[in-house]
Amino acid sequence: MANKKNAFYAQSGGVTAVINASACGVIETARKHGDQIGKVYAGRNGIIGALTEDLIDTSLESSEDIAALRHTPSGGFGSCRYKLKSLEKNRREYERLIEVFKAHNIGYFFYNGGGDSADTCYKVSQLSEAMGFPIQAIHVPKTVDNDLPITDNCPGFGSVAKYIAVSTLEASFDVRSMAKTSTKVFVLEVMGRHAGWIAAAGGLAEQRGIPVVILFPEIEFDQAKFLAKVKDNVQKHGFCTVVVSEGCHWPDGRFLAEQGTRDAFGHAQLGGAAPVVANMVKEAFGYKFHWAVADYLQRAARHLASRSDVEQAYAMGKAAVEFALAGDNAVMPAVVRKSSSPYVWEVGKADLANVANVEKFMPRDFITEDGFGITGKCREYLVPLIEGEDYPPYEGGLPRYVTLKNVAIEKKLPAFEI
Amino acid sequence: MANKKNAFYAQSGGVTAVINASACGVIETARKHGDQIGKVYAGRNGIIGALTEDLIDTSLESSEDIAALRHTPSGGFGSCRYKLKSLEKNRREYERLIEVFKAHNIGYFFYNGGGDSADTCYKVSQLSEAMGFPIQAIHVPKTVDNDLPITDNCPGFGSVAKYIAVSTLEASFDVRSMAKTSTKVFVLEVMGRHAGWIAAAGGLAEQRGIPVVILFPEIEFDQAKFLAKVKDNVQKHGFCTVVVSEGCHWPDGRFLAEQGTRDAFGHAQLGGAAPVVANMVKEAFGYKFHWAVADYLQRAARHLASRSDVEQAYAMGKAAVEFALAGDNAVMPAVVRKSSSPYVWEVGKADLANVANVEKFMPRDFITEDGFGITGKCREYLVPLIEGEDYPPYEGGLPRYVTLKNVAIEKKLPAFEI
Repeated sequence: MANKKNAFYAQSGGVTAVINASACGVIETARKHGDQIGKVYAGRNGIIGALTEDLIDTSLESSEDIAALRHTPSGGFGSCRYKLKSLEKNRREYERLIEVFKAHNIGYFFYNGGGDSADTCYKVSQLSEAMGFPIQAIHVPKTVDNDLPITDNCPGFGSVAKYIAVSTLEASFDVRSMAKTSTKVFVLEVMGRHAGWIAAAGGLAEQRGIPVVILFPEIEFDQAKFLAKVKDNVQKHGFCTVVVSEGCHWPDGRFLAEQGTRDAFGHAQLGGAAPVVANMVKEAFGYKFHWAVADYLQRAARHLASRSDVEQAYAMGKAAVEFALAGDNAVMPAVVRKSSSPYVWEVGKADLANVANVEKFMPRDFITEDGFGITGKCREYLVPLIEGEDYPPYEGGLPRYVTLKNVAIEKKLPAFEI
Repeated sequence: MANKKNAFYAQSGGVTAVINASACGVIETARKHGDQIGKVYAGRNGIIGALTEDLIDTSLESSEDIAALRHTPSGGFGSCRYKLKSLEKNRREYERLIEVFKAHNIGYFFYNGGGDSADTCYKVSQLSEAMGFPIQAIHVPKTVDNDLPITDNCPGFGSVAKYIAVSTLEASFDVRSMAKTSTKVFVLEVMGRHAGWIAAAGGLAEQRGIPVVILFPEIEFDQAKFLAKVKDNVQKHGFCTVVVSEGCHWPDGRFLAEQGTRDAFGHAQLGGAAPVVANMVKEAFGYKFHWAVADYLQRAARHLASRSDVEQAYAMGKAAVEFALAGDNAVMPAVVRKSSSPYVWEVGKADLANVANVEKFMPRDFITEDGFGITGKCREYLVPLIEGEDYPPYEGGLPRYVTLKNVAIEKKLPAFEI
């Protein structure tokens, strides 16, 4: 190709254990098609890198380091929480993006993120056409929350789900062996502000005989019913595990975590939902308890990634480049499930117009009637997503994760205030 | 042997990812010496099982299930937090133990625990002799706290240390990629009420370029110095990770976790040290933060066990039986380090008289002068303990951990109130 275009890739929002596997898929596939795609520039700290013209030249990274992205958690080029406003409110930012792309001969825009970034991606594609410098914008799905529509699941979710399922199982075995004289209730707080997919994964420990009570964001918290359920489990099994989603809330919408706690000086105290739930159980029954808040540990746990998840994350990155080469625009590769057992999936394609700003919650029939557990249908959905292990290489007891050189190319445009 | 004796095995105190590997070592080795040792009875829920004559017949477990203990976390027979009082205060309990051992022809007492159980073990050996039914009492070391004397390290610690080192690394990579617009400080709370060994393991992430500030229980908390250190790291690296031991305390002895927080109803609230530290940083500098409390996840994380740890846990159980067969009494197998690099260790033997009630803290020269980090000497000590992986088998995405049948033998004695 006489004037082959360069590509731009950026990571958006909260990172995951496998978002770098998607980056690896994008870059390795682009390198294979060096006759059609020039350089892949990555935005330092996501879209901010594009706005500020801080573009990382990924061609300076060795093929070994790019390959190592596949087993490295976090965002290798940096990510950001920066949502572009609507076109009406801030056309200036969209135009700046296109100016930067034009200045560096970028014809492909690969944006790796969740719902918000799908929306941005869609708008860039529309506006670039209107501005006479058409960009092929392809969204690469990523979110631990598993809340994107159309795709059967989202890269990033399977590994969190595996981490939560395994951790719930392990901690429950621990509690079970201590319950006679000590801890009877263990509470694990997990991510998921709006959707309970991650919390649901804790329910997989039930297959191994663990009594698990799940508090979903989709189900309004009913304290009396919850306490009765915990008591029943402790009486029946001697112990009980509770998995509480950070998004669990009272009927009036207040999160459990906002308990109005104040420190000795009267300052409002930010706590988690787990200690609130644990104290509730303690006050009602006097049971000894332990609680954990997994927080970033859960989404960064590449050491326990799901093999399906890693493969899909890579495949989404690879497909994004292939779609671009095939002339697609304003689309997103998606996971299409053909069968759960054996697990068979393939890469599909979704129109960004249908993806942007739609959140996918747990279907009611994935949650048991009493609201505290997962159904067989949910298990059938979840198990394939956590199947298989994909261990990183280790050195000196620690995983060999890569830190890239991340050298920026020279700027060509005036500075831009964000 | 005409009248070969049976053995009793019990798990004591908080369980670990590898205490069952020691159980496996005891039982498999005893089975190999069936000509000298009769049955191995396990106490259901630790020493309580001996006091209440609730003895599990491990001979009813298949060799596959006993082998699976090696990769199963928690206490397979149940553990308990039940400290026998001093001989003077409660001679009755010690005598009961010996009566139960006598009734079931038990000549070997293998007690798998920390400092307290080493003490109990020692007393049983002494008293049994006085009572004319000599028991060979062998202590099998176990504690995530790594605070037993004489032994170079304690089975259970290496795996927690690996979990904390890897989790600190992974979460720090995550924060590093978010720091531009979002989280700048990540706080991880770890176990260790008195000794900072577990917290120290978080410092191993520094080898991979992560700025880590450690709050040890051995060092009095100095808020101003701590905040300055965090600020310095954020300014230099853009982010900072804090690993805080649950035992971190103010100069007056109050734990950081006891912050006098009260909920909306004025009830004292049990919180962790992590949210206290995180809020402190937020108030001082306004940095966005995230915090995690690993709690049971850290000590149950068999999925990430250290290979050295698993091997040593098994070896301690095996050696305990071999010591018993060689006629030893009131001893504990210990890990003797011959060399750190390459790591070479062998099984030694400690007198219980020297083990009981001695706690081993972090030496001051393992902690940097400013009190917030680990020294090269500490790293040299820690690295071999987290080296090597020992993954459990998986099925359907979850580890295949074993739950034993745990069938009790018939009781012969009157009931005993504990």
